[in-house]
Amino acid sequence: MSTLLVKGGTVVSSTGRTVADVLVDGEQVVAVLAPGSDIAASVTADKVVDATGKYVIPGGIDAHTHMQLPFGGTEASDTFETGTIAAAWGGTTSIIDFAVQKYGERVEDGLSAWHEKARGNCAVDYGFHQIIGGVDEQSLKAMETLIDEGITSYKMFMAYPGVFYATDDQILRAMQKARELGLMTMMHAENGPAIDVLAEQLYNAGKTTPYFHGIARAWQMEEEATHRAIMLANLTEAPLYVVHVSAKQAVEQLATARDKGQNVFGETCPQYLYLSLEEQLGATGDPTWGEFEGAKWVCSTPLRSRAEGHQDAMWQALRTNDLQMVSTDHCPFCMKDQKELGRGDFRAIPNGIGSIEHRMDLLYQGVVTGEITLERWVELTSTTPARMFGLYGRKGVIQPGADADIVVYDPKGHTSIGVDKTHHMNMDHSAWEGYEIDGHVDVVISRGSVLVSDGEFHGRAGHGQYLKRGLTQYLT
Amino acid sequence: MSTLLVKGGTVVSSTGRTVADVLVDGEQVVAVLAPGSDIAASVTADKVVDATGKYVIPGGIDAHTHMQLPFGGTEASDTFETGTIAAAWGGTTSIIDFAVQKYGERVEDGLSAWHEKARGNCAVDYGFHQIIGGVDEQSLKAMETLIDEGITSYKMFMAYPGVFYATDDQILRAMQKARELGLMTMMHAENGPAIDVLAEQLYNAGKTTPYFHGIARAWQMEEEATHRAIMLANLTEAPLYVVHVSAKQAVEQLATARDKGQNVFGETCPQYLYLSLEEQLGATGDPTWGEFEGAKWVCSTPLRSRAEGHQDAMWQALRTNDLQMVSTDHCPFCMKDQKELGRGDFRAIPNGIGSIEHRMDLLYQGVVTGEITLERWVELTSTTPARMFGLYGRKGVIQPGADADIVVYDPKGHTSIGVDKTHHMNMDHSAWEGYEIDGHVDVVISRGSVLVSDGEFHGRAGHGQYLKRGLTQYLT
Amino acid sequence: MSTLLVKGGTVVSSTGRTVADVLVDGEQVVAVLAPGSDIAASVTADKVVDATGKYVIPGGIDAHTHMQLPFGGTEASDTFETGTIAAAWGGTTSIIDFAVQKYGERVEDGLSAWHEKARGNCAVDYGFHQIIGGVDEQSLKAMETLIDEGITSYKMFMAYPGVFYATDDQILRAMQKARELGLMTMMHAENGPAIDVLAEQLYNAGKTTPYFHGIARAWQMEEEATHRAIMLANLTEAPLYVVHVSAKQAVEQLATARDKGQNVFGETCPQYLYLSLEEQLGATGDPTWGEFEGAKWVCSTPLRSRAEGHQDAMWQALRTNDLQMVSTDHCPFCMKDQKELGRGDFRAIPNGIGSIEHRMDLLYQGVVTGEITLERWVELTSTTPARMFGLYGRKGVIQPGADADIVVYDPKGHTSIGVDKTHHMNMDHSAWEGYEIDGHVDVVISRGSVLVSDGEFHGRAGHGQYLKRGLTQYLT
Amino acid sequence: MSTLLVKGGTVVSSTGRTVADVLVDGEQVVAVLAPGSDIAASVTADKVVDATGKYVIPGGIDAHTHMQLPFGGTEASDTFETGTIAAAWGGTTSIIDFAVQKYGERVEDGLSAWHEKARGNCAVDYGFHQIIGGVDEQSLKAMETLIDEGITSYKMFMAYPGVFYATDDQILRAMQKARELGLMTMMHAENGPAIDVLAEQLYNAGKTTPYFHGIARAWQMEEEATHRAIMLANLTEAPLYVVHVSAKQAVEQLATARDKGQNVFGETCPQYLYLSLEEQLGATGDPTWGEFEGAKWVCSTPLRSRAEGHQDAMWQALRTNDLQMVSTDHCPFCMKDQKELGRGDFRAIPNGIGSIEHRMDLLYQGVVTGEITLERWVELTSTTPARMFGLYGRKGVIQPGADADIVVYDPKGHTSIGVDKTHHMNMDHSAWEGYEIDGHVDVVISRGSVLVSDGEFHGRAGHGQYLKRGLTQYLT
Repeated sequence: MSTLLVKGGTVVSSTGRTVADVLVDGEQVVAVLAPGSDIAASVTADKVVDATGKYVIPGGIDAHTHMQLPFGGTEASDTFETGTIAAAWGGTTSIIDFAVQKYGERVEDGLSAWHEKARGNCAVDYGFHQIIGGVDEQSLKAMETLIDEGITSYKMFMAYPGVFYATDDQILRAMQKARELGLMTMMHAENGPAIDVLAEQLYNAGKTTPYFHGIARAWQMEEEATHRAIMLANLTEAPLYVVHVSAKQAVEQLATARDKGQNVFGETCPQYLYLSLEEQLGATGDPTWGEFEGAKWVCSTPLRSRAEGHQDAMWQALRTNDLQMVSTDHCPFCMKDQKELGRGDFRAIPNGIGSIEHRMDLLYQGVVTGEITLERWVELTSTTPARMFGLYGRKGVIQPGADADIVVYDPKGHTSIGVDKTHHMNMDHSAWEGYEIDGHVDVVISRGSVLVSDGEFHGRAGHGQYLKRGLTQYLT
Repeated sequence: MSTLLVKGGTVVSSTGRTVADVLVDGEQVVAVLAPGSDIAASVTADKVVDATGKYVIPGGIDAHTHMQLPFGGTEASDTFETGTIAAAWGGTTSIIDFAVQKYGERVEDGLSAWHEKARGNCAVDYGFHQIIGGVDEQSLKAMETLIDEGITSYKMFMAYPGVFYATDDQILRAMQKARELGLMTMMHAENGPAIDVLAEQLYNAGKTTPYFHGIARAWQMEEEATHRAIMLANLTEAPLYVVHVSAKQAVEQLATARDKGQNVFGETCPQYLYLSLEEQLGATGDPTWGEFEGAKWVCSTPLRSRAEGHQDAMWQALRTNDLQMVSTDHCPFCMKDQKELGRGDFRAIPNGIGSIEHRMDLLYQGVVTGEITLERWVELTSTTPARMFGLYGRKGVIQPGADADIVVYDPKGHTSIGVDKTHHMNMDHSAWEGYEIDGHVDVVISRGSVLVSDGEFHGRAGHGQYLKRGLTQYLT
Repeated sequence: MSTLLVKGGTVVSSTGRTVADVLVDGEQVVAVLAPGSDIAASVTADKVVDATGKYVIPGGIDAHTHMQLPFGGTEASDTFETGTIAAAWGGTTSIIDFAVQKYGERVEDGLSAWHEKARGNCAVDYGFHQIIGGVDEQSLKAMETLIDEGITSYKMFMAYPGVFYATDDQILRAMQKARELGLMTMMHAENGPAIDVLAEQLYNAGKTTPYFHGIARAWQMEEEATHRAIMLANLTEAPLYVVHVSAKQAVEQLATARDKGQNVFGETCPQYLYLSLEEQLGATGDPTWGEFEGAKWVCSTPLRSRAEGHQDAMWQALRTNDLQMVSTDHCPFCMKDQKELGRGDFRAIPNGIGSIEHRMDLLYQGVVTGEITLERWVELTSTTPARMFGLYGRKGVIQPGADADIVVYDPKGHTSIGVDKTHHMNMDHSAWEGYEIDGHVDVVISRGSVLVSDGEFHGRAGHGQYLKRGLTQYLT
Repeated sequence: MSTLLVKGGTVVSSTGRTVADVLVDGEQVVAVLAPGSDIAASVTADKVVDATGKYVIPGGIDAHTHMQLPFGGTEASDTFETGTIAAAWGGTTSIIDFAVQKYGERVEDGLSAWHEKARGNCAVDYGFHQIIGGVDEQSLKAMETLIDEGITSYKMFMAYPGVFYATDDQILRAMQKARELGLMTMMHAENGPAIDVLAEQLYNAGKTTPYFHGIARAWQMEEEATHRAIMLANLTEAPLYVVHVSAKQAVEQLATARDKGQNVFGETCPQYLYLSLEEQLGATGDPTWGEFEGAKWVCSTPLRSRAEGHQDAMWQALRTNDLQMVSTDHCPFCMKDQKELGRGDFRAIPNGIGSIEHRMDLLYQGVVTGEITLERWVELTSTTPARMFGLYGRKGVIQPGADADIVVYDPKGHTSIGVDKTHHMNMDHSAWEGYEIDGHVDVVISRGSVLVSDGEFHGRAGHGQYLKRGLTQYLT
C-alpha cells in the first residue's frame, strides 16, 4: 500500500487545533505526529501534501441527501455520480442518502433499489437512512433487518399525506420498534394535513406563486409537529432527530426538551441560515415577482421570514448546541422541466434546493463572520454527523485507525459560487448564485485517495463505498 | 530524552474512543499510532506501559483547589505537596489553585505569596486563578498584569461580607475590566448578606449544629446570586463561570441564559452529585445528630436536600451540558482543631471538603451507573477544564505536541475509599468514607514521568511546574 | 309578580364580599341594598329568606355535562330530569350540556334531538354546546346557524377515532369558521390514535383492569394534544377552551400560551383535584384490585398519579388563573349493566364520573382548606363560566337585572357525601363516597323560585328554561 | 342626609356591565337598582345625575403618587391640594401617597410629617404607604405600628444608594417582619449601585444629556433587581408588589414566579405604555437633542426603547394579568428651576413625570384602540388597586355600603391634553402634550359629593379624608 503524508497543517478537531503531520497508509490514517519530533523526522511517504498554513480537517459528512429522488412527478436531478462528484469538490467525503419505502411497498425492495442506483456510481463513500413511508406490520418487521444492513436510522414524515405521511399511531408503533432495536428516528416535522388545507385555500384564492409555498407552511405547523414528535419520543423513550429545522419556535421546543435531558436532536441546513422568505418576494416585494423566479428556493420546511428572526435563531442554536449538525437536504431540481411544473400552482413545484457542493464553504463563512468557531465548524459538519449516525472512529475524526478522509482547507483562498463558476451539481441554476466565500477547499482525500487537488478532480465514480453504519454514538 | 510507549490501550477523547499506541518523547506526546501499522511496528521506546484492556485518558485537571488556604482562623490542611501527591494518586495531573488578594492587599503580593507556597512543592503541574477579594482602583489596575503572569481567570465572591465579598458595583467594574482584557470571571454565587442574617437568626434560636449551615444557605440565595451574576455579565458582555453550583434552580438560571446564547458556564463538584443535606442529619434524622459529625460535610455552597432533587439535577445538567465541568473545590480541614472550631456554632466551622484524590474515580462511577458516558467523563474532568481555562492543546487531550499527562484507567479494577484505605490527603477523616468505585487509577504519567504505577508513588514534590495559561478556548 | 328578599347575608362576588339585602321581583334581581339604609328599611317582600351569617352567591353554572349521552353502547344514567334535580340540590342552577352531531349526521338533527330530550324535563336552566363529531362541508355550513340558536361554542375531539375524532385538517377548518363567526372552540385534547395503540397493547398483554385505562391515557398524550390545539388556534387566531385538563404538563402548555397573550382557556374537574390514579389501585396497590372496583373512576382524561403531582398542579393553576373554571364533565354510569360492560377489558368501560351534585361543595372544601379564596370559589364556579360562555349579566352575578339564581351557602353547615346520604344522581354508587364537606347548600333559588330549602326539594322538572347564549365575554 | 341618584348609566365592573341606577344616601351607595323595576320607580332623590349612554364606574384609585416629595434638592411641584384637584379632574377619587422615612429618621416622624402635609388639603380621599428608607432595629420595630395607623404596605428601594437604598440583608429582615405582620412589601426594583457606576461612566465620557439617563438605567438592572426581590420574597414567603415595571424582562420574571404560584404583583404606569426612550432623542435622533428637552421624560425606572418592544409587552402584561394595576408614580417637577438642575448632568435631573390627571383617560384610550377591554380598564384603575391595598368594599366597586366614589365617563366625549388645555397639575409642561383621548370624564363624585360636573370643579381642599387601609385582599 502506498503512503501519503499531510504535512505541517493545522489539524482541527471539534475541541481544538494543533499543528501536526498526518500519515496515511493505504486507506487509513496510521499516525498523527508532532512535527519536528524524531519519529516525524523519520517518516517517508510516497506522496506528500504540504498543508502549511492551512487547516486539516476530517472530510465533511452530509447526512441528508436525496440523489435521484422521485418527487412530485419528476426526479431529483443529481445522480449518485453527479451528486457525489459535486460533494467531493466541496470537501464532503461521505453522504448519507435516503432509501425510500412507500406505502404498499416492501422495505427490502426500496433498499435494494437504492443500492442499485448508488452501487458503483459514487465518487465518495455513501450510506443510507431508510425512509419508512408506510408503517404497517410488514414494514415494522422489516425494521428489524436494518441494522444488519448497516442502516441504523430511519425517517418518517408528518407531512405529505398520501405520499410519505405517517399518522400518530404509526409513528408511535415505529418509535417503539426503534427504541427496542436502537434505531434513530428521524422526523420531517411539519403538520402536513393542516398545511395542505392552507395551501389549497391560498391556491383557490389565486395566490399561486412560489412565495405562497412559504406562507402555507406556517411556522406554527413546524413548531406543532416538532413538539408532537418530541412527546411521542418521550412516551416511547426513543431518541429523536428532527431534520431541516427552520423555525425558531421549533428550536425552542427542542431546547426545552433537551434541557430536561431528553435525547432529541436537530439539524438545520445552509438555506435556513442564509436565505429567507423575503428573498422569494424579489427586490420589488411583489409576491408575483418575476412570475416564477422564487421557485428555485422552494423547499420544505420553507425559507422563513428574516423579519421574524429565524435565521439568527438558527445560528444561535448552532452555537448553543440546541441544533447539533448542518446537513444540506440536497434535493436538486432544474428550473426547466422540473421546477416549472409548478408554474401557476406553487403546490406542484418540486421541493428542494441543491447545496451539497457548498455546505463546507457556506459554514466556513460563518467562521469568518464570527457566527461559529473553527472547531464548531468541524463539529457541525463532520464530527457530530459521524457520531450521530454511527460512523465515528472511521469518519468524523483524524486519528489513527480512521479512514483517511481529509480535507485541506485554505483560509487564504477564495471561492465564488455560481453556475458559471464553481458549480458541479446537475442543476441549471444555483440557489447560491453570487455568494462569495473567504476560504477554499484545497485538497480532498477520501480513504487515502486524492480526489481533488490543484483545482482538478482526480476521483472517479465507483471509488465511493457503501458505509455500514453502527448505532448512534451521540446519546447521553 | 527518553521515550515511553503506552501501548494497546483504548484512547478516550471527549468525542470517542479508539485503540491506539501513544508515543511519548521526553515530556510530550509525539505520536499517536494505529496498532499493527508499519510505523507502529517500527517504534521502540525506552519504557513501555501495557494498557491493553484499559482506558488511556488525558490526565485529570482539577480547576478548583485551595491548598493551604487561610479560612476561618485556620488553614486548609493540605499543603501544595500533600495535596498534589493526593491528586496524582487520583489521576489528576494538573490543578488550578486560587491565589488570594484580600481587601487592602495588593494583588501582586497575594500572587507572590501563592507562588511562594507552591513553587518547588508540587507533585503535578499547577496554575493559578486570582481571587480579587477587594475590588478597587488598585486591584482593577493589577488585573491588567494577570495575563502576562499566565493567569487568565479571576474569582469574586457574592458571599462572605467582610472577607471576600464584592458589591454589585465592584462586580460591574471588574467584569468591565475582564471583558476588556479577555479574562474569565469566576463567581461564588450566593447572596452572602442575606445568608448571614439567616445564619445569625438560626444561631440565636439555638440551632447551632452543622445541619443548619445548609438551612441558612438556602437554594433561593444561590439561585438569586446566580441570576444576578448572569445579568451583570450580560450587561458587560463578559463571559462568566459559576463555581460549585449545587442548586437545581441555579442550573435553571444558567440553562436559560445559555439557551439565549450567553457565554455562561458552571461547574459542580462530586459532593453535590453524591452527598445531601439529609446526610448531615445522620440516620436518626436528628438535626443535633452525633452533636457534630455532620461538620465533615460543611462546605459552601452547602449540600442540598435529596428530596428536592438537586443531586439528580446536577447529573442531568452534566449530561445536557448546562454544567460543563466537575472540579472539587478541594478545601480540606481536619476535624481535630479545625472543623471543631465550630462546635456549638456552625458558622465557625471551616467550610470545605477534600476530594482531590477521588474526583476521577467518583465521576467514573457515574459512567458505571450510566449517568454519563465514558467520553463525557473525559470531557468533564479534563478536556473542558483545559479549554475553559486556556490549557487545551498542552493539557486535556492526547495528541502530538501535548504534554504527556496520561492516565491509564482500569475498568476491571476496584477502589475502596476511606482513611485507612486509599486516602493520601492530609485529613483525619474522609467525606467519602466507604465509597466503592468499580474502576481503578492504574498508571499516572505527568509530562512523561510515571508518577504512579503498580500501586506505588514514584513522583516527587517539585516535579510539578507552574502553568502559564492562555485565554479561555471555550467561548462560542 | 311576587317578591322575595334574601336578607342579611354576605353577598360574595368574584372580587369581594359585602353584607347586603337582595330583592327579587318575579324572576329577576331588582335591587341590592345596604342593610339599615332607608331604602332597605322600606322594602317589603312576599317572602323573606334570612341569610344572616351565610354566604349569598350566584347560582352555580356547570358548563360541562352529559345527560343521557349515548356512549360505549349504553347511555349516561342521568336524564335531564334526574341530573338537573341533582344539580339543584347541589347549588347549581344552570348547566350547559352537549348536543351531539356524529359523523354522517346533520348538526341540526343532533341539536333537535337534544332539545327533545331536555325540553320540559329540566329542573334548572340549561343551554347547549354543540359537539361537531364529523367536520365536513355540511357541518361547517351548519355552524353558521348556531349563534341564532343561542349556541356560541362547539366541541371537537382529538380522541376517540371512529367516534368523534377530528383530524388536524378538520380542526383547522372548523377553527377558521369559528374565528369568523365568533364561536368558542372547545377541545377534548388527548391524542386518541396514539392512546388507542397503547390501550390495545396493554389489553393484549393481559393488562385489562380499570387501572390500565389511566396508564394507556398517558400525560404525554394530553400535553401533546393540548399544544397541538393551541398551535392550530394560534394559526387561525381562534380562541380555545380545553376541557377537563388533568395533566400538569397540559397546564404548562396553557400557561405558556397565555403568558404570550393567546386567548386559550382551560377547565378542570373535581376528580382531577381530589382523586388519583393511585386510587384505582386500591389499598393493596394491586392493579387487579377488587377485580373491577376502580371502574367507578374511569373517565377521560383519566385520573392521574398523585406521586407526579398533578392534583397539586391543578389547584395551583386554579389559583394562578392558568385554569379559569371548574366544571364536572358529569357523565354518570351505573356499575351494574354499564361500567360492568368493561369487565375484562378496560377499553369497554363507559367513561365518566358523576359529580354534578357535589361540585359546589367540593370546591368550597378547597376554600376551607385554604387552596382557594371564597371569592375565587364564586369566580370558578359561576362568574367565569357565565363570562366564558356568554351568560354573564343574566347569570354568574348578583346584580339588578340578573336572573335571580341565588344560593345561600352555610359555612357552619356540613355535608356528607354518599349513596345513602345526600346522593340524588341516578347512579348506584358515588365516586365521592365518604367525602365530608365543612359547609352546606342551604337555599337554592332559580329565577326567583326556591328550589331547595329546609332540606327539601320544591322544584320541578320543567321549571328550567333553555338558555340562548351570547358570544364569550372573556376574551382579552 | 341628602340623596343622589345616578340614573340610567351602564355600570361597569371588573367582570361585566349592566344598565342600573345607583342610589347614594349621604356618602355611601345604598342601592343598585334595575331601571324600570317597581323599586326603582319608587325612588326619589335630592339630586339626579343622568348617565344615560355613559359609563358609570367606581372612582379611580391612584396607588402611587408623590406629592411634595423632596427629591434631588427640590420638591415635587404638586402639593396635596393641587395634586388631588388634578386627580379629581381626571376621575381619580383616591390616592395612596408615600410617607417617607429616611436613614436616621424615625418612621413615626416621617409619617407625622406627611399627615401634616396632607391633612385638610386634599380634594379627594388619600392614604399612605410608608417608605422605609433606613432599615434598622428601630424602623423594623416601628413597622409593627403601621397597621394600626391604617398603613398596610411599605416600600423599599434597591436603587438610590445613600438616599433610600436598602441592602439585601435589610430587605430580608424587613420582608420577614412584613410577612409576620401581613404588610405588603413594595419594591423599587433597580440595581442602584450598578446603575450609578454606569451613570458616572457616561457622565465622565461627556454623555450628559437626558437621553443617557435611560441608557444608564439598563433593562438588565431592572430584570436583575426584580428577580432578586422575588427570590427574597420567596425565601421569606412575603407577598411582593413591584412598582413602576417598565422592562419586558422584568415582566417575564414576574410571570415566571406567578406561574409557580408565588404572590408577586406588579404595576406599570402610563408612561411605560405610551412613551419611549426614542422620544428622548427627539425627531433628529440626536442624543444631544434640543440640549435638554428630553428632561421632561426623565423618570425611574426610565422610558425604554420601543424597538426592543417594551411598550407592547406592558400592554400585553396588562391583558395577561402578569401586571395587575396601572398607577402613575405621579412625581411632577417643573422644567424651570427643577428639571433644569440637571442641565449638563442628567444625574441631577429630578426624576418624575406628572400623570395623575390623565391616568383614567390614557387607559381608556387603550379600550378605544382595543388593547384592553372596558371591564379590564375598571379593574386596572380601581378594583384591583382597592383589593391590592385593602380598600375594597369601601372603594373600587359600586355596591351597597361602598363609598359613593363614582365617575360618569362619556365614551362620546373627547379630551385634549396639554398645558393650555385640560391641564390642572402644578407643572409648566406636560409629558402628555398633544395626546387626544376619545372619551371624557363627565361627572366625578367623591363620597356622595359632586366634585366635577359640567366642566366645572365643585370640590374643595379638605373634602378628602384619610383612608385607614386594611390588609391586602388580593392574595391567592
